[in-house]
Amino acid sequence: MPDLRRVTGAEVRRQARSGELTGPTPGLALGYVQANLVVVPRDIAFDFLLFCQRNTQPCPLLDVTDPGCPEPRYAAPGADICSDVPRYCAYRYGELIEEPSDLFGWWRDDLVGFLLGCSFTFENALLKAGIPVRHIEQDRNVPMYRTNIACRPAGVFKGPMVVSMRPLTSAQAEAAARICQRFPLAHGAPVHVGNPSALGIADINRPDFGDPVEIRAGEEPVFWACGVTPQAVAMQARPSLLLTHKPGHMFVTDLRDSDLEGR
Amino acid sequence: MPDLRRVTGAEVRRQARSGELTGPTPGLALGYVQANLVVVPRDIAFDFLLFCQRNTQPCPLLDVTDPGCPEPRYAAPGADICSDVPRYCAYRYGELIEEPSDLFGWWRDDLVGFLLGCSFTFENALLKAGIPVRHIEQDRNVPMYRTNIACRPAGVFKGPMVVSMRPLTSAQAEAAARICQRFPLAHGAPVHVGNPSALGIADINRPDFGDPVEIRAGEEPVFWACGVTPQAVAMQARPSLLLTHKPGHMFVTDLRDSDLEGR
Repeated sequence: MPDLRRVTGAEVRRQARSGELTGPTPGLALGYVQANLVVVPRDIAFDFLLFCQRNTQPCPLLDVTDPGCPEPRYAAPGADICSDVPRYCAYRYGELIEEPSDLFGWWRDDLVGFLLGCSFTFENALLKAGIPVRHIEQDRNVPMYRTNIACRPAGVFKGPMVVSMRPLTSAQAEAAARICQRFPLAHGAPVHVGNPSALGIADINRPDFGDPVEIRAGEEPVFWACGVTPQAVAMQARPSLLLTHKPGHMFVTDLRDSDLEGR
Repeated sequence: MPDLRRVTGAEVRRQARSGELTGPTPGLALGYVQANLVVVPRDIAFDFLLFCQRNTQPCPLLDVTDPGCPEPRYAAPGADICSDVPRYCAYRYGELIEEPSDLFGWWRDDLVGFLLGCSFTFENALLKAGIPVRHIEQDRNVPMYRTNIACRPAGVFKGPMVVSMRPLTSAQAEAAARICQRFPLAHGAPVHVGNPSALGIADINRPDFGDPVEIRAGEEPVFWACGVTPQAVAMQARPSLLLTHKPGHMFVTDLRDSDLEGR
């Protein structure tokens, strides 16, 4: 059994496809870009693509599949978004119906898959630079919050930006901003540092998604645009069908973190 | 009569709308971002948006209008893509039908407008840095060439990348690359320096579009992805209706060149 932290993205996908891997993917295939997956029918795919184009910071597009084709030809040639994720969520009219291990029973000729950049890419860069990532230290999910920042709407898709939070000292926050702005396809630089109420967040200890983390003396909360935004907005639009990865169970691409630098 | 080089983008649009300005826009409203305009029906707008997403260097999206709405709310709130360009081209099934001064007679509820970044933005930056731009010196159109670089296709849209060429010394080319890579929404860094045949260009003195320019001793041709690419590809798809700006007669936005830096 190879150490899954040190394998390629293709190997993680192979294990997800074969059913050997059914759990979450953080820390696996280190150095390979992991992606959020959103699948919608063709009739609202234009709206969703436009929503992503209008809100690139929470919705950085890595690849979009052709309608009916499950292969992300740019991010992972030969891969299959129907089978290569460890666990999926299937929603009808905004309600979670099933958490399938593949999408073969759900796939249709009019479906379009979207792969969106994810915070793991910049978290790896932060850790390499010696900047702590508290929820990883505390072995929790990152805390996420709905904000008062309205996304630019597109057709049926509208709603607030969701942000993730990592506590840092001022010096660490400045270094983190410099590092993260090199990765626009992984949410880029923080959207806010310091004051939760400026974002409409009432209680930093009660995130809307994920787990609270400790903020230590001398630290302030640092907020990044979050890839949960497009999923939250898509669920709120209540489309007849919406398929996504299960949170934390990402699609691992063939792209390297360094491929996203400056892109 | 104000000097149109020193007015705002809004003033250029006002003069285009009123019919005072019917000519080309290079050099007008210096510092404001000028844009290519492509308008297609909703049924192929997803394909065109996807084509742009897959080919960001020739097709950098500045703004996309809602179907049926002629206002580019991000790039120029309050503006009207039907009237604010000095001259348009209207194509049916790939054939040029008319060069109207407004689109009111052509507009439909299912049309979607795309504003794409343009080389004027980086040319202004080059000139500011003392790097010569030959076709401006020679008062010609920039020479443009079809290449052997295939764009990533999307639905009905496929075809080769078109590039523009400016002759520079090696030192100037290196400086230009550093400057232009700061403007990914204006085609970014050059795609090739030096060898036309590497791009499948048979004769550098016979461009496919625009005019030839002099290449002096010690200079080499420097090639950039060109905003004519999406127009060439859109014409080749022969859609039932395609509306564009007339070459050189651009939509001038409210965005400043500096707004595009690093974006």
